[in-house]
Parts: sequence; C-alpha cells; structure tokens
Amino acid sequence: MSTHQTVKVAVLGASGYTGGELLRLLAAHPRMEVTVVTAEKSVGATLSSTFPYLASVLPPLTLEPVEIDSIATRVDAVFLALPHTKSLSAVAAFVRAGKYVVDLSADYRLRNPAEYERWYDTAHSHPDLLKDAVYGLPELYRQDIQKTRLVASPGCYPTAAILQLAPLAARGLIQPSSIVIDAKSGVSGAGRSPALAYHFPEAHESLEAYKIGQHRHIPEIEQELRRLGSRHTTAGPIQHDENVHVMFTPHLVPMNRGILSTAYCQLRRPMTLEELRAIYRDFYKNERFIRLAEGDASPNPRYVRGANFCDINVFVDTRAGWVVTVAALDNLIKGAAGQALQAMNLMLGFPEETGLTAAGVFP
Amino acid sequence: MSTHQTVKVAVLGASGYTGGELLRLLAAHPRMEVTVVTAEKSVGATLSSTFPYLASVLPPLTLEPVEIDSIATRVDAVFLALPHTKSLSAVAAFVRAGKYVVDLSADYRLRNPAEYERWYDTAHSHPDLLKDAVYGLPELYRQDIQKTRLVASPGCYPTAAILQLAPLAARGLIQPSSIVIDAKSGVSGAGRSPALAYHFPEAHESLEAYKIGQHRHIPEIEQELRRLGSRHTTAGPIQHDENVHVMFTPHLVPMNRGILSTAYCQLRRPMTLEELRAIYRDFYKNERFIRLAEGDASPNPRYVRGANFCDINVFVDTRAGWVVTVAALDNLIKGAAGQALQAMNLMLGFPEETGLTAAGVFP
Amino acid sequence: MSTHQTVKVAVLGASGYTGGELLRLLAAHPRMEVTVVTAEKSVGATLSSTFPYLASVLPPLTLEPVEIDSIATRVDAVFLALPHTKSLSAVAAFVRAGKYVVDLSADYRLRNPAEYERWYDTAHSHPDLLKDAVYGLPELYRQDIQKTRLVASPGCYPTAAILQLAPLAARGLIQPSSIVIDAKSGVSGAGRSPALAYHFPEAHESLEAYKIGQHRHIPEIEQELRRLGSRHTTAGPIQHDENVHVMFTPHLVPMNRGILSTAYCQLRRPMTLEELRAIYRDFYKNERFIRLAEGDASPNPRYVRGANFCDINVFVDTRAGWVVTVAALDNLIKGAAGQALQAMNLMLGFPEETGLTAAGVFP
Amino acid sequence: MSTHQTVKVAVLGASGYTGGELLRLLAAHPRMEVTVVTAEKSVGATLSSTFPYLASVLPPLTLEPVEIDSIATRVDAVFLALPHTKSLSAVAAFVRAGKYVVDLSADYRLRNPAEYERWYDTAHSHPDLLKDAVYGLPELYRQDIQKTRLVASPGCYPTAAILQLAPLAARGLIQPSSIVIDAKSGVSGAGRSPALAYHFPEAHESLEAYKIGQHRHIPEIEQELRRLGSRHTTAGPIQHDENVHVMFTPHLVPMNRGILSTAYCQLRRPMTLEELRAIYRDFYKNERFIRLAEGDASPNPRYVRGANFCDINVFVDTRAGWVVTVAALDNLIKGAAGQALQAMNLMLGFPEETGLTAAGVFP
Repeated sequence: MSTHQTVKVAVLGASGYTGGELLRLLAAHPRMEVTVVTAEKSVGATLSSTFPYLASVLPPLTLEPVEIDSIATRVDAVFLALPHTKSLSAVAAFVRAGKYVVDLSADYRLRNPAEYERWYDTAHSHPDLLKDAVYGLPELYRQDIQKTRLVASPGCYPTAAILQLAPLAARGLIQPSSIVIDAKSGVSGAGRSPALAYHFPEAHESLEAYKIGQHRHIPEIEQELRRLGSRHTTAGPIQHDENVHVMFTPHLVPMNRGILSTAYCQLRRPMTLEELRAIYRDFYKNERFIRLAEGDASPNPRYVRGANFCDINVFVDTRAGWVVTVAALDNLIKGAAGQALQAMNLMLGFPEETGLTAAGVFP
Repeated sequence: MSTHQTVKVAVLGASGYTGGELLRLLAAHPRMEVTVVTAEKSVGATLSSTFPYLASVLPPLTLEPVEIDSIATRVDAVFLALPHTKSLSAVAAFVRAGKYVVDLSADYRLRNPAEYERWYDTAHSHPDLLKDAVYGLPELYRQDIQKTRLVASPGCYPTAAILQLAPLAARGLIQPSSIVIDAKSGVSGAGRSPALAYHFPEAHESLEAYKIGQHRHIPEIEQELRRLGSRHTTAGPIQHDENVHVMFTPHLVPMNRGILSTAYCQLRRPMTLEELRAIYRDFYKNERFIRLAEGDASPNPRYVRGANFCDINVFVDTRAGWVVTVAALDNLIKGAAGQALQAMNLMLGFPEETGLTAAGVFP
Repeated sequence: MSTHQTVKVAVLGASGYTGGELLRLLAAHPRMEVTVVTAEKSVGATLSSTFPYLASVLPPLTLEPVEIDSIATRVDAVFLALPHTKSLSAVAAFVRAGKYVVDLSADYRLRNPAEYERWYDTAHSHPDLLKDAVYGLPELYRQDIQKTRLVASPGCYPTAAILQLAPLAARGLIQPSSIVIDAKSGVSGAGRSPALAYHFPEAHESLEAYKIGQHRHIPEIEQELRRLGSRHTTAGPIQHDENVHVMFTPHLVPMNRGILSTAYCQLRRPMTLEELRAIYRDFYKNERFIRLAEGDASPNPRYVRGANFCDINVFVDTRAGWVVTVAALDNLIKGAAGQALQAMNLMLGFPEETGLTAAGVFP
Repeated sequence: MSTHQTVKVAVLGASGYTGGELLRLLAAHPRMEVTVVTAEKSVGATLSSTFPYLASVLPPLTLEPVEIDSIATRVDAVFLALPHTKSLSAVAAFVRAGKYVVDLSADYRLRNPAEYERWYDTAHSHPDLLKDAVYGLPELYRQDIQKTRLVASPGCYPTAAILQLAPLAARGLIQPSSIVIDAKSGVSGAGRSPALAYHFPEAHESLEAYKIGQHRHIPEIEQELRRLGSRHTTAGPIQHDENVHVMFTPHLVPMNRGILSTAYCQLRRPMTLEELRAIYRDFYKNERFIRLAEGDASPNPRYVRGANFCDINVFVDTRAGWVVTVAALDNLIKGAAGQALQAMNLMLGFPEETGLTAAGVFP
C-alpha cells in the first residue's frame, strides 16, 4: 500500500461481539475504511441500532446479507467473523478474488484437514487452501503473515495458551505429557446469541467447567506447541513432537470479557525462577503487545480490557515440581478483533501496531 | 498554542481512578505530554506498578509529592484530581503562576462561597478566585472556557443531571418545585480507597440509596439549573430562579463504571413527546459528545464505557403528568477525566475533541 | 386443617425462578407436601435436572403438563406461577373444584376488569370471579385472605411500592399527584427465558430504565393506594381517591435478585422525620415480615436475599420538600414465592410464618 | 445430650462472614442457642447493626470481647472463627474447661507441629493438644468426631480438594506427583476486612491467580491425601504416602460466594469413566451432603449457595491421559460454618444434619 492510501474493508458477521469490536478498532484506524458490514439475522438494520455504542463514531452503515461478488467489488480487504464452517467457501472466494483475508473462524487454522474433520465433525471443503493459510499469531509468524493473503486468526484460548508456553516449548523444555491448561473466560466468549447458560441470573454468581478435554481449541494448541517443539531439532527435516498432548479445561466466569489461562507443566530438567523469567524476557524482547508482569505480579484481564496486550508471568513451585505460567488477555481484542487487525496491518504493510496502541480501560 | 507545539502537563492525584483515566486519555493525546504525576500515599512508586493497565503506554513515570513550585517550572498545564479542600490553595498557586488549570474537585464549582461553606463545612479560602473560575461544562460554557485559565470541572452526577434537564430549564418549562433526580452510580464513583461499603462482597448483589437529599452535588445542580432558568427572562438584569430545588437521591449500583440518572419533573404547560424531543435535538444539535437515543431507546452506561459521550433521551407520561429524562455517562470520563480534557483542549486552543473521539468498549 | 394434617400441593409453572423458589420453601415446610409440578416446555424432565439446586431436598418429581382435572384429584392446594392470561381459566377451574388457590400472575389482581383489559390488552374471561379474589398482601388483607379460597398474589414491584407508601396513604397524607416511584430490580425479575436484554454480557455492567410510565404493575399500585387513601374517609360509602396517579419507572440492575424501590412524594402538610418514623412503627408494629431499618440505615436487597422480609425506611428532605421512602425485598420471595406461601398459610389456618422464618443469605 | 436439652453456644469472631453464617444457621437450629457473640473491633455493637440481615431472627445480642473465663461459665459449646494463631490458646482453655470446641482456624489442623511452623511462620504453642484434635471432615472422620471434644474444621479449599480426590486417593489410584489443583473462590473467602484487592472496582470484572504453590491450605490437603493413600496398605503399621505433593493454585473470582475446584491427576492404571463414577458412587453412597452430579453435568457453586452440599463430578480425558474431578461448595457453609455445625452436631450426639438441610438459594 502506498503511504497514504486508505484501504476499503468489509466486516462479515458484524452484529456479534467480535464484529462490533472490529468496527470499534477500525473506526479509529487511520488507514482503513469500513465500507461493508454484513449480518445474518439483522440484515437491514442500521449499525447504530445494532450497536448503540458505535453511534456517531462510524459513518451510517446498514447491515447487508453476505453477497460475495458484490462485496468483492467494493473492498480490498475482508475480515470474516462468522461461525465455523460458514467461512469455508467465503474465504476461498475472497482469496480467489485477490482480497486480503483475515478469517476469525476456526476453518483455516488446522493444517491437517483430518484434524479439522475430527474436531468439527465435517469434512474440510477446501483442503488445498490450508497450505496458504498462515496461523495469525504475529509473535510467531510475523514474516509469513506479511507474505500471505490468507490469515487464519487464532482462537481466544489458544492465543493465551500458545503465547504463555511458547518460550518453553521453543526450547524443548516441557515434558510433553505434563501440560495442563486450566483456562477461564468471560461470557462474551460465548457470543451474542442468548441461551440459558448465559442468561444473566444463571451466569452471574456462577462458575463452571465445560467441555472438559473436548473443546475445539485443543487441536490448535497442540498443533502450535508441536511445531514450536520441533524447531529445536537441528538436523534433517522438521520433526514435530507428536507426544504433546494438552489437558485443557475451559471455565465460564461471571465477567464480560477477558481470559485468564493458567498452564501447568513439568520440565525436562529443573530450572530456577530467574532462568525461566530470563527465557521469557528474551523470547518476547521486541514484542509490543506482550507485557511480562513485574516481579511476582499476577496478570489479570482487568488490565487489558479493550486493549491488544497479552500479559504473562511465569512461576515455579520447586516443592511440588511444576512450572506455572499465567496469561491474561481480552478475548475480544488480542483473542479476536485486535489480533486480526494486527495481522491485517502486517499483510497490508502498515506498521503492525496501527490502531492498536490504546491502553485498556480500568477499572 | 502554535500548531504543533506540545504542552507539558501535570496530573495531581494520579493514583486514583480519575487520575488513571486522565493518564490513559493523555497517553493517546497528540498534543499533550504528561511530565509530572503526583500522589499522596504512593509517592515513589512507579506508575506502572500503581496502574499495571498503563504499563508500556506511557513513558516511565514515578509518583511525586505535590510540590507546587517545582511542578510549576516543569509544566504548562495542570489537572488536579484531589479530594475537595485539598485543591483550594494549590489551584490558587498554579493560577498565580500563569498555568492552565482544570480542577476536578468541588472547590471552585460553587459561585457563592457561602454555599461552599454550607455544604462542605469549611470556609472557602480563596473566594476572590471564584469569579474567574468557569464551570467546566463545555456544552453550556464553551466560550467562557476558551477565555479562562481556571476551570472547575463538574461532578459526575451534576454533569448528567444538568445536561439532561438543560434543554427544559433553558426554556423555563420546568415547575421549579417538581424536580426529582434519582441517580445511580457504579462503585468507581466512590474512589479507590477501600472501605466496607465498597468491599466486594458487600457491594456486589447490593443496591442502596445514600445521602438522601444531602449529597454535596446538589448545590451544583441547583446553581446551574437556576442560571439556565434565568436566561429566558429578557428584560433587565438576569434573575436566577431561586425557587429551583432539587430532590436528589444517589444510589450505589453493583457495576464498576457508569451513571444512569433518571430525572422527573412536571412542566408549566403540557407538551407532547414530539415537541420535547424536538427541543432536545435543537438544543444539542452541534454537540459531538451528546447523543440523543434513537426512538424510545433507553440510554445505558454500557454504551459509553470509556467514552466521553453523554447519552440522553426524554419521555413523557401524559397519564400521570410527568416528563422523564434519562442520561447515561461514564462517571470517570464525561463525568470526570474526559470532561476535564475537553475543557483543557478548549483552553489551549486545540480542537475540542482531540484525544476524546474513541468509542466506548462494549460489552 | 387439623393440627398435624399435611396438605398436598401442586405448583404450576415449576420450571421458572418463582416456581423453583416455591419448591425450595415448600421443601422445608412442615405441613405442605409437593405432589405435582408442571411446566410448559420441560414436560417429562426431572425436577433435579431442571433445578440441580433442589437435588435431594425434594422427593423425585417429574414435570407434568397442566391437566387440571387430574391435578385437582391429587392435591388440596394450588400455586399458579404462570404467565399472565395463562391463569385465567386454570384458576377458575381450581376454584370451582374447591381448591385453595394462590395465583401469582396478574390475572386476578385488578378489581376492575376494564383496567385489566386496558393494561393487558385482553378481555378478562372471568370477571365474576374478581369479587372473590383477595389481593394477597397479608399486611393489608390478612383477615380477607383467611376467609377466601382465591388469592391474587401481588407483583414484586407493587409489594414494595404499596408497603413503603401504605402508612402515609392510609392516613391520607400524600399529595395524590406527587408520587414518583423509581424502582430497581435484579434480572431474575425478568424470568428464566433467555433474551438479548438479559444475556449476561448485555445485562452485566449495565443499567437501564424500561417501560417508563407503562409498566403493567402500575394499575395494581394505584388501585391499592387509592383504597388505602379511601379508608380515612369516615362517613358514607367508601370513596377511593381517584386522583392518585403514580409516576413509575422500573430499572434493570446487574444483580440476580432483589428490588430496591425509592418512592418520592409530597405531603399535604409538613411533618418531621420523627413523626414520620413513628407513623411507620405504629402501622407495622405487629408485622413479622416488615423490618424498619435502624436510624438512617438504608434498606438493601442484600439483607433479604432468600428471605421473606420487606425492609423499609423513611426519610425527609425538608429543604426540597419531599418525603422519600425506601423499600428492599427479594423479588422472588416477599415479591413472589414467599408472599404466596404466607397467604396460603393464612388460608389453610397455619401460623402465617410457617416455613418462612429463615434469615437471608449474606453476603 | 438428652433428647430435648438445648445447648448454649458461643460464637467467637462473630462479626466476620463465617461468624455471620454460623449465626444464621444457629438461628434455625432447634437444639442450640446462641448465648455469646464476640468480636475484636466491634465490641459493644449490636448484632443487628453489624449484620442487618440477621435483624429479628436472633434474640438481641451485643458483641463482647473475648473473655474466656466468663464465656466458659455461660456456654457448653464454642465455635471459634478467629484468624490463625489467635485460636491457639483460646482453644486450649476451652478444652481444659471441658467445652465442646470447633475451631475454624488453621491452628489445630496440621498433625505435625513442624509443618505448622513451616507454613504459618510461628511455633505451635500447644503441640500436645494436636493429637486430640480431629480434622473435622465428617465424611472421612465421622466416628472420631463423635468421640472428641476438639474439632479442627477444615479450610474451604481443602474441603473441596480432599472430597473430590478422596475416592481415588483411598484406593491408591493416583500417581502421587501428578496432582494439580486449580481452585477458584468467590471474594467472601478473603474475609470482611476491606483491602485494595477486594475493593469492588478492582475485584469486579477481574480474575487472578494468587499465592501460586504457596497457599497455606496446601499442607492440609497433602496431609489428608497422604493419610487416605496410606489406608490401602494392608499389612504392618500405616505408611503415609510421603510422595504426595500437590500443585495448588487458588484464583480470586468476581462472585460473592462459592468455590469451584478443578483437580487433575494421572492414574497408576487406566480406568474408564464408568469405573471412576462407580467408585465415587460407592465411596459417597451414604453421604447426605455429597451430591454427585447427574451424567456429565458440571458442579457449579450457584447450586449450593447457602447450603451445606459439596457437589462433585469426575471426568476422564483418555486422549490426553488425565482424570479431572470438579467440586463445588459454598466456601462459607460446607467450607466453613456448615461443616463446623455438622461436626458440632456429631460431637453433641444430635443428628448430623440438624439445622443443615436447607437447599441453596438459586439464582
């Protein structure tokens, strides 16, 4: 993109929480202009009636149905915030049309289509496209993202889990069968469709585990930890560490936003807290959106509300023999809309942080 | 200020919630630079340990004690977010030193020093300065603010109450003895000092009225409604409507931020809903930070979280004979830090909305 | 009922929050035995799957459809917790069958069928039964309840509003056009059916007014205040004070349970705080479930969570010329299930407080 | 105790949340009468001003200072809800005076005084009494409790952790170095003293881990799991499994009450879900206060709010090789006041469930 050109952008699935936050971020972005917004059920509604919080900060827009050909003629870049399986063919069409595409669904995240079929109960309709899709975690795949036209933006839980374990995984320090990830999410992670589990009186003063060992974010986490684990093998073709299995339990917590991910693992060899923290500082030394907590401070989603940061700290319990990493992020920003925008900035050649430098809102 | 000059700024009382939000807004402000931050109890602490949410978005700053002479040499403009009575002499000193001053305390809001003494149980030490202080509601006093060096920024409840009643008051429509304001505030309005009433298990799943008819924001509200009421007298010297008395009850609501103010009044003559809404549209037609809700939609603080908007709607119950206005704002932004920055922008000759255009964060 | 006999009871609409709380109270009631539970959508489900909190505290029960003839043969008393209009014919049938009936819907609360039609948009199908129905507020109609077979149990908002104003209304002290009731309810008051307005991320950190001047609880409140106002006329037939109009605004507050009702009125003649509190103490002197707060303490729903109390206090703002009364109750207990049980106890000749003496759960 | 005798009871530390809930439970207990209540800071205050929720449900009581000799002459049984170290000598004195004592602090929970000194940074002043103290978990030590005069009531986290792992530990199924317990608690677990971490705006929309691997409840959990593990050795003196180390991380969750404890472990040999659930059903088959969830339902603190239940379920992730158990309880009831009362009932020869049969309050 030339220096001052503005890119026209479509947001598909604009009536959900992630769609709303994409629009909020784009409203403040100096180089992107939202031209098309789509929805499924609210077609014809104005954006400001769907999201009164966006009234007057965006030009008047009306929610359209998803008509790919029409959209392709009007925009240069597309964010898809659709439910999984709904992105499969839309993504393919936009890629074919030469658009810059960031897909926030799970449809292009798993490199192995058999894994997709196993976890999503449906065959992948475009397995050939998977080799072009880059897993949209800029901290791990910055250069690949800059070169592609198709980014599969990570899920909210995997963003936390992968970022909090990457420094250890990349050095091959983790006992592969020892990983337990106990993650906690605010209710906005469940989307904007009402259901009894998210009805206020049920979800407030409430706390529960769900999909224990069965959540669809598990294969993403394992895929990326295996890749990271494979990097330290130096000779011959890359060998992924297929022994990495993750015990993953998500919990629903009575707050609007935020993920706190507490990951436990045992190491192949004992390390001191100082060594561990040095590894993290080194691994993330140039990362604007990773903040390592000071001293023993605990990351807390309250410090990243509305912001694109992932706050991380690492602890060690030498008595019991475990390393504990804690990561906090906003599931709708670094776990969704912010990360997607970060990748789009990279694809379009803008400074990576454009439109993403705001601090969180506290309290 | 010349076009590209940056103004050095001090924030006094930077360790409270309002101070934190001032800093967050200033971090994104293109023309102001935070140079000094002060605190009472946390002197010597780094800003990022006091407010981890601000880590990495501001340059490293350390909380200093309030030493006015030193500060005056290092900054051009000062925000004071101190408890009432603590601002009295500091404001005077900064004004004397030629600084641009926005005081967020109540110390310079009441024009009549006797009223100050009555409601704050202490004599005003600088009554002479009161005539220079402008009540910092830009929607009512824009031009005065542009010309002064001392702005007394309004309280959170009065901002809502005055803005929601101003269009009616300015036309002399309200029966002066009929005003009931039932206001509800999130707990951050009580500040950052722990106390039993704000201890989580007490304040959560909890709701109560407090200081019924005795809250110190009452005289501000009456002062401004009286002034507004006086404007429509056309001949002779301005006569304030001293009959305006406000029945004001604040409530503490289990949420972090936000004020919802429900104001009831009877009119001097019956009016239709359409007439009323037309009056509001006209009164606020050029105001960027006032949003009139669409149709019968209810303002809700969730739509202004972190933003400088005041959302307003007006309703009429012809059966019972009352007009009801509802206003929602973020007590820390349009009710404090945002409004203070809006006034400072005006004083400094910057576009009024500089650094204040962000949408709220929802959900 | 003879001293040790147990009454068999049906709960219709047992899968809603009010139904659940009726069952919880009945599980601990020494003289009533739940024999039948019905539901609309969950027919066939076990009670413990519908309400895991009741697992093991009630005998195993399965939700049945509403089959009146069958139910009538199996129980002596019926609680109906159905949506309005759904109770109309069911109540009539149970009354005809000689059952003790407490209807928690609005269907038999309004004495004037024209008012019912006006506010509920449907003609009343059994206007003849209205003269037998007693408005189930034991504090006002204890003796009538003891003699009837049909109790129309009051709504949650009216219970608070009537109880907080009754001592003043019964003495004819209130200016009839001055009443403003600003009520705040927890979200369980909206029932157990998911909808966007009650979806956790929307309702949390959220606060809004709704149905301003249009809520269907208004005619109940006016009916009872008018009757109370009429009592002090001593000669001739009772004259209701038809001038009583209530400005009523309900608000949705981010908590599970509880109502806080703040009522404002002007008096026909000035009274001191001491006089007012004496009137309240006298009016409620033998009432077990009315607690007048100590001194200036504010009633708060947190103190009545799960309990059958209505906590009340009265304040006066002599400066502005208003009396303010504040009432707090649990919308599901004194505002629904508890009050219904209190009335049923009276109808059945049990001590009024049987099964209702538990303290609230705090915090 | 003879059949109808009433036992006079003292509650020390009556102004905290646990004290309040003890009083609430005792108010409904047919065989115990609260005669003495003590506090530290609020001496002289009435109980109803300290806890308005208890107004009118208990006789008027005034908070006294802790004067052991005086108290000993007026009661038969004592609950101590004091901070740790404050119970040490008070317990000893009451035991010496022949009282029935339930201590809710940590002071008599650890059998090994060296462990006490290690975790509580102070020497145990009465190590000789430790052999008489019974760890007050009735599900494990019912008969011992019936015979003692001194019960050390377990902490809230250990109650959940031990109960959820006991069926596996008692059969020696757990790999001792594999136990990870990720526990989440409502804020009332932190007590009633205000502090910044529990200030509403900080704790709401907030979630954090704390004292990772360092919480003082760890040695209790390990002590009991080791004992359980030792039981299955059949010959010779009991051998505790000293290899049991627990990785324990507590989290603070924005709700008032409730603990959800998610425990992960690897087994010595693979087991199916059906085998595991059968083991739990068998282990807890006669336990009134343990509820095993139906099917795959998740325990949730919302179902035990105010009740003495511990709800448990067990899951297995055969893919990743872990067993997951989930337990939910009310930290103030089964995790404190209810469990203490359950033990006192046993000591006094009352039916164990007396005063504890109420269902929770939902929603």
